[in-house]
Amino acid sequence: MKKLSIEQEHHVKSLLEQLTLEEKIGMIHGNGLFKTAGVERLGIPALKFADGPMGVRNDFENAKWKTIGLSYDFVSYLPSNTSIASTWNKEVAYQVGQVLGEEARGRGKDMILAPGINVKRSPLCGRNFEYMSEDPYLIKELAVPLIKGVQEADVAACVKHFAANSQETKRLEVEAIIDDRAFRELYLPAFKAAVEEGESYSIMGAYNRYKGEHCCHSKCLLDDILREEWDYDGVVISDWGGAHDTEQAANTSLDIEMSVTDNFDEYFMANPLIEAVKSGKVLEEQIDKKVRRILTMMERLHMFSEERKSGSYNTPEHRAVIRKASEEGVVLLKNEENRLPLSKKVKKLAVIGQNGDMIHSNGGGSAEIKALYEISPLLGINMLLGGNTKIQYAPGYYIEPKKEESDVNWQESSLEDIVNRSGSSEGVTPENTKDNQVDEHLIVEQKKRKELREEAVKVAKEADEVIIIGGLNHDYDTEGADRNDLILPYEQDELIKAVLEVKPEAVIVIISGSPVEMRQWEKNAKAIVWTSYAGMEGGTGLARVLFGDVNPSGKLPESFPITITDSPAHCIGEFPGDLEVHHSEGINIGYRYYSTKKVPTQFCFGHGLSYTTFAYEDLVIDNSLVGRIDDNTVIDSVKITGQVRITNIGNQRGAEVVQIYVSPVESKVERPEIEIKGFEKVSLEPGESKIVTFSLDSSAFSYYDAEEKAFVVEPGKYTIRVGSSCEDIRVEADVIL
Amino acid sequence: MKKLSIEQEHHVKSLLEQLTLEEKIGMIHGNGLFKTAGVERLGIPALKFADGPMGVRNDFENAKWKTIGLSYDFVSYLPSNTSIASTWNKEVAYQVGQVLGEEARGRGKDMILAPGINVKRSPLCGRNFEYMSEDPYLIKELAVPLIKGVQEADVAACVKHFAANSQETKRLEVEAIIDDRAFRELYLPAFKAAVEEGESYSIMGAYNRYKGEHCCHSKCLLDDILREEWDYDGVVISDWGGAHDTEQAANTSLDIEMSVTDNFDEYFMANPLIEAVKSGKVLEEQIDKKVRRILTMMERLHMFSEERKSGSYNTPEHRAVIRKASEEGVVLLKNEENRLPLSKKVKKLAVIGQNGDMIHSNGGGSAEIKALYEISPLLGINMLLGGNTKIQYAPGYYIEPKKEESDVNWQESSLEDIVNRSGSSEGVTPENTKDNQVDEHLIVEQKKRKELREEAVKVAKEADEVIIIGGLNHDYDTEGADRNDLILPYEQDELIKAVLEVKPEAVIVIISGSPVEMRQWEKNAKAIVWTSYAGMEGGTGLARVLFGDVNPSGKLPESFPITITDSPAHCIGEFPGDLEVHHSEGINIGYRYYSTKKVPTQFCFGHGLSYTTFAYEDLVIDNSLVGRIDDNTVIDSVKITGQVRITNIGNQRGAEVVQIYVSPVESKVERPEIEIKGFEKVSLEPGESKIVTFSLDSSAFSYYDAEEKAFVVEPGKYTIRVGSSCEDIRVEADVIL
Repeated sequence: MKKLSIEQEHHVKSLLEQLTLEEKIGMIHGNGLFKTAGVERLGIPALKFADGPMGVRNDFENAKWKTIGLSYDFVSYLPSNTSIASTWNKEVAYQVGQVLGEEARGRGKDMILAPGINVKRSPLCGRNFEYMSEDPYLIKELAVPLIKGVQEADVAACVKHFAANSQETKRLEVEAIIDDRAFRELYLPAFKAAVEEGESYSIMGAYNRYKGEHCCHSKCLLDDILREEWDYDGVVISDWGGAHDTEQAANTSLDIEMSVTDNFDEYFMANPLIEAVKSGKVLEEQIDKKVRRILTMMERLHMFSEERKSGSYNTPEHRAVIRKASEEGVVLLKNEENRLPLSKKVKKLAVIGQNGDMIHSNGGGSAEIKALYEISPLLGINMLLGGNTKIQYAPGYYIEPKKEESDVNWQESSLEDIVNRSGSSEGVTPENTKDNQVDEHLIVEQKKRKELREEAVKVAKEADEVIIIGGLNHDYDTEGADRNDLILPYEQDELIKAVLEVKPEAVIVIISGSPVEMRQWEKNAKAIVWTSYAGMEGGTGLARVLFGDVNPSGKLPESFPITITDSPAHCIGEFPGDLEVHHSEGINIGYRYYSTKKVPTQFCFGHGLSYTTFAYEDLVIDNSLVGRIDDNTVIDSVKITGQVRITNIGNQRGAEVVQIYVSPVESKVERPEIEIKGFEKVSLEPGESKIVTFSLDSSAFSYYDAEEKAFVVEPGKYTIRVGSSCEDIRVEADVIL
Repeated sequence: MKKLSIEQEHHVKSLLEQLTLEEKIGMIHGNGLFKTAGVERLGIPALKFADGPMGVRNDFENAKWKTIGLSYDFVSYLPSNTSIASTWNKEVAYQVGQVLGEEARGRGKDMILAPGINVKRSPLCGRNFEYMSEDPYLIKELAVPLIKGVQEADVAACVKHFAANSQETKRLEVEAIIDDRAFRELYLPAFKAAVEEGESYSIMGAYNRYKGEHCCHSKCLLDDILREEWDYDGVVISDWGGAHDTEQAANTSLDIEMSVTDNFDEYFMANPLIEAVKSGKVLEEQIDKKVRRILTMMERLHMFSEERKSGSYNTPEHRAVIRKASEEGVVLLKNEENRLPLSKKVKKLAVIGQNGDMIHSNGGGSAEIKALYEISPLLGINMLLGGNTKIQYAPGYYIEPKKEESDVNWQESSLEDIVNRSGSSEGVTPENTKDNQVDEHLIVEQKKRKELREEAVKVAKEADEVIIIGGLNHDYDTEGADRNDLILPYEQDELIKAVLEVKPEAVIVIISGSPVEMRQWEKNAKAIVWTSYAGMEGGTGLARVLFGDVNPSGKLPESFPITITDSPAHCIGEFPGDLEVHHSEGINIGYRYYSTKKVPTQFCFGHGLSYTTFAYEDLVIDNSLVGRIDDNTVIDSVKITGQVRITNIGNQRGAEVVQIYVSPVESKVERPEIEIKGFEKVSLEPGESKIVTFSLDSSAFSYYDAEEKAFVVEPGKYTIRVGSSCEDIRVEADVIL
């Protein structure tokens, strides 16, 4: 972590000495929904926080979940983490981070509550759209530059939610039961990299419990791992309402308690803590530690300096980054007979499906923002094709209007409300509506859907080209509730099948923050495109891919199973958990599971096609730098370098994500069939070749030995597999350690 | 006008021969609110029209004033014509035209109902914001490039409203009574240039009457002047509901009748015209002339070609043009003690006044659009200053909510409704609310205003810098109603005075589409800025001027009188007219009046300051090219050239609009004291000099001789005055003709 100068150290020390207990307490808990108290007499400003990952959230009144409603908090709408992860582009992640940081600082914030870097254990977790991947390596490779980008603007990133926060169901109480090996191999590495390499100035505790403790004041997570093992001196902040006990909060490494209610003085680390100090239950030096870390972060953010950056937002430069990111995040899943790209000269185009005409920035929970604008796919396609194409839109499916919540969101509710709402998806997914009129209701709904489907089929029949744009929205990809299943809602499978029947050439676009089931129609579709919530220029990016202005280069950051019971947590019935969630699948989540257990997927991890073709050749591995081997363990560091030649053998410019997987050929312990340990996105002109070099250190070969409490590398043979997805391996070579 | 190729001529002829009477009739009247009928069997497409001047208006259902409501018709929001005129930059006008054309074509339109080029006779005309200036020369110099820009996109411009449409009151019936000299010198020249130089493919008839005829089927205007004198073969379209008689419409040069009702077959040029032809009252060749002109325009727009441009909208390039235009349109009216620009390092800034937090794209009548976004001043200032400045906003004045009109606008009403509504501003300006509760209402309102004012004063007191942002909005600058007076509404004068009392340094910003009275506080204000509705980046442009990123270079395109009774039409009680409006002031409108009659203005025509200073030197006139003089009239052409040296003697980059005025020293007829006959905007680095050259032909010296029915140039002495506004003449020289 960035060290303070001697002057800064001195300033922190001096402030700390002058602060009264009450002033210190004011600094370590919310005295507004998104701020702490400052200490004016000492020139210590309040700390101002903002959601969230997809842009700086609009401002609320200090003590009420009521939006202020002025015009100044319209902001740029950034791609979701799922979308960023689909780019597999570290530079894009860095630039998106810069945009997020500049916008947060421009809006006067000190800390932006992002990025979310939890590992996607199940495709059904409601907040998956806010997270990046099922693989910790991919997460860390993108999260680290993103965090660095944010913090260049003198704003703290806040990685969240530490740790093992993999379901929304009963999120305030559920305990994640995970064996140490899986925890160390899957659930911790991205956090470790975020604080060690990314130097994230802050980290947010998770709502859930781990090893019997609430994560927000877990001795194991915060003291032993974060502070002790990782030597972290940044700020730990609770998720809003994630603290539950004054003494535990005070005596562990939690630095700031935030919550969702307006009785700020009654927060666990407010008046009750003053009492606890006065009665001797908590030592004041515990408070001092917290305040020192907060002041240290303030120094890192130049909050005491006239030279602090002021930021900016809604700039054309920000939009350019956002558009590039959205374009690179589009994944071409299938493209038989080169159905795509479509010709811009098309005369009659049908756009079918409500996601074609929908915007998503205003939903999802704390990720919602007041976007300055959002280009829908329908708008993006119209903008691109212009006036010579007749574009007919048909909604195709019926979305039941949500009950009017006006200014309400999960955070407006009491803590109990949150517990209750997060414990059940009822009332969130329209399917679950349960009242006396349920039958009548369903009949009306089904009729509407049928009518819309018939209209869509008619529109499709009359068109020269058809694009179906469906998927999910933030009624499903949302904070506070998990999905019930993988199936496309609103009878979209029926719609897609009906349209494909009359127009087998129709292009299918799925917009979602998490995988959906496609088995009912995937075989009959010639072209399938997937993109996540991709920010304010999402519709532009999608249109440019569909019509060939941009050659798609996105790759799936997670596996798309054929059906939900194929997926590891679900086939064993361990998602979602109730009071406990048992990660009985251990290390076998995502592609680790599918590859090891030979379970076919609909589309595999790392998959994504291009309009051009890439050849992989000349894989060369240099393992002369393998360290000393002793007692069947590689003791010294491993450093293997490799290179592979990639050539664009098609006839247009394109970019390929070269993926490096490692497979232990034999091992005394259970190992996944493959694990990704390197990737690089390369852009190539037609006919152009580039040499991609990579290096693999011990972490590429090691597993966590729970007995030894350490990562160990077994000597032996490993296969280095290089390819275009985890299943599309093009070249491979063995290496002996 | 662009000539057709032989193939195109042949195609038009061939189509015309094949068309039935009924098909021809279908092409010359609306069969939708914004389209005519095409003829599918002959491959003749429907003609699609769109409002309006500030961007392409959202789509309505074909036969109902109900917005379709999908996402595809969000568009770029362009500066109003008043804002464009304030730039005094021909290149900006051209680029804005290009944007408007590309967006219109991108939205699939064939004709964009813009620009509005009526001369601003009174500051109170409701549609002044849609018009450019009180001076026909300034209008034509900007309208011509704007039209050319539009039409590059294979979209027809439609200059409007032809002619003498200077008031909204009773606009469907009022007759403009104007002497021929004033009509020729003031009200016609911009239209003449628009069709002759701009080659506008279409022109819209006005609602009002002239010489006893409705303008939309005026023999005098359409046949004698437009077709005969100006040799115009473009398309004449009626304003919506502007035609009133089948035979008059058919037998004059009106080509397309549009209206606001859905009984399309009953339009004057629909079934009634078929009857009139069949009964011999109208010759079919009259219809053929109209259809030939429509087909000719279709050829000019490449509507029968595969090569027609397809357009695009919402592009970053469009926004860049719009931002530049908005910046150049900001006029610095006053800047004592160099109050402006403000420092970006300001710690506490107060922004006071509802126009600071208001957007305007969604109002004004047919100029309303669905803007993709609009940056308010408050947002623009926040975006620019970023997070180190605390910006406190106070509304300062109270705007009574308008009665909910939901999807209603003037066009949704019946023709009678329009007549009635346009005949009175009641119900439009909130001041006029008349009901039983009026007194109680006023008391509540006044109390609210007083409270808001007190809050604003408090906020101002506590701030380091104060910006008051007031002016008008589209409750006042609106189609269908004129303003009642020049006074700032909502008791803004009281607000400004109250704030100036506690903060004499406060900067005043007025946003309006037309002049407002400032006499109550102008003397006490150190800095005053004016800008019109300046498009989607208006708030950005304003902020950049206020804080010095942009050096202001806008100039007033019209005079700001001290009070309304100072202005020519009003001091003689001739605005608004009832069934007739007598332009008894003749040629003396705007600065012509103020300069000739020595009536002081608050801010004069052409006025606008800079943060730098310009020196004017070395005016040289070459009049060797004056033509032959005979019989006290200059018979041959006049061509005088001149040059003047402009130097930036300040210490920052800036742009100056060098203005060339001509004054006849003696004349046998009444002449205005000065008339603008040339201008050029020049950008200069500190210390840089440029030579501005100009040329003046006969039109710079002539007046219209109503007896001779011709423009004539008197021999004699003329003074050429060059300066920074019509009152700030820096150098002058005499010339003898």
